[in-house]
Amino acid sequence: MQKGSAERVKVVKTWESPFAMRVLIALEEKGISYELQEENTRYKSQLPLQMDPIHKQIPVFLHNGKPLAESLIILQYIDEAWPSASPEKRFMPSTPYDRAIARFWAAFMDKKIYEAGRRIIMTKGEAQEEAKRELVESLMLIEGALKEFSGGKTYFGGETLGFLDIAFIPLTGWFYTYETLGKFKIPLEDKCPCLKAWMKACMERDSVNRLLPRPEKILKDYAIEFRKKYVRE
Amino acid sequence: MQKGSAERVKVVKTWESPFAMRVLIALEEKGISYELQEENTRYKSQLPLQMDPIHKQIPVFLHNGKPLAESLIILQYIDEAWPSASPEKRFMPSTPYDRAIARFWAAFMDKKIYEAGRRIIMTKGEAQEEAKRELVESLMLIEGALKEFSGGKTYFGGETLGFLDIAFIPLTGWFYTYETLGKFKIPLEDKCPCLKAWMKACMERDSVNRLLPRPEKILKDYAIEFRKKYVRE
Repeated sequence: MQKGSAERVKVVKTWESPFAMRVLIALEEKGISYELQEENTRYKSQLPLQMDPIHKQIPVFLHNGKPLAESLIILQYIDEAWPSASPEKRFMPSTPYDRAIARFWAAFMDKKIYEAGRRIIMTKGEAQEEAKRELVESLMLIEGALKEFSGGKTYFGGETLGFLDIAFIPLTGWFYTYETLGKFKIPLEDKCPCLKAWMKACMERDSVNRLLPRPEKILKDYAIEFRKKYVRE
Repeated sequence: MQKGSAERVKVVKTWESPFAMRVLIALEEKGISYELQEENTRYKSQLPLQMDPIHKQIPVFLHNGKPLAESLIILQYIDEAWPSASPEKRFMPSTPYDRAIARFWAAFMDKKIYEAGRRIIMTKGEAQEEAKRELVESLMLIEGALKEFSGGKTYFGGETLGFLDIAFIPLTGWFYTYETLGKFKIPLEDKCPCLKAWMKACMERDSVNRLLPRPEKILKDYAIEFRKKYVRE
């Protein structure tokens, strides 16, 4: 944590939001102190609604009172607003092309992995089978991207944790939920060995390990209840 | 157009894609030469599929053979890869917070305006009424953003055309289609006077005026046919 900083940083979150986790991991990795406001999962408090009248989303990020929404935008903001002298503390790649590619894949993760996962939780039968197939196909594409970007090193960013690592690792905490509610096994070992090793390396980092909720808790305290609203088994 | 540049820039587009238009306007405004590859509306050619196996989208942007997809990402890339000495040629705002806000609103335009517009074209009855309401409400929020960001000047970027201007103006070419197929009038004059003046100013720019297809052509040569696939009147 930075000492003596006059910066006030506050994050409005729910415990289960993978998007809020992205922001917290980024802050911890940069060594930026922050205040937390924990909202109920269904966040009935008025604060985030006032702060983000547009999407009414979690997380809301406040820097000296100025609010931002959308976790991927917040990550880029943190990287730009706290530029670090040492290159290994930068989340975004150093060239315009690599930055563009990183933005593309981060959006892909939200669009394909998170959305397919939602559908695994919220559906059954053929719709669920389709979502499971889509999840695995998308993971295999991400496996290819990881191989290419890491260049044989640990992270999407190569030797250091970067934008795509921070964007993706909170989503993997939901794999156990997808497997249990989808009654299948995500073939990480067979089809995504690099991703599997990457997940292990990320989970060994203090920031990630301490901040992410346990996969069992996501299933029991959130996903099972959430599924009941949509699916009659 | 830049002379003597060794840069090869190519854009794969369809005539009606507002997302492709963003890229072309950006290139023209920066004075970057480019080659065009025009695809059929249903683009059956294999090129863009090879270039972008992920989204299979238009436009595809190639810089010295290296492909990028997603128009908002391409706009940021163009701004970063061709940094201009003069600040009035930069599309993105100069501070991290303003950049984050610009990214937020650009995503909002795609999510709210473009999506509501699609639903106006593709539905009828109550679903269409709902989409019309959503479009107008979202436009009023964008009106508020324009007032705030322009600070009494012409553009979202103040005195100069910027990221949000380039992101939004191609979407306004579809308003005539939405009005005609939705059998309503978008209340720009009453509820979005700043947006109305902004549209006029943008359309007077050579790049915008020359590149955007006529609203009547979008309706007749694309939207009416497209609607027939989804709606039986």
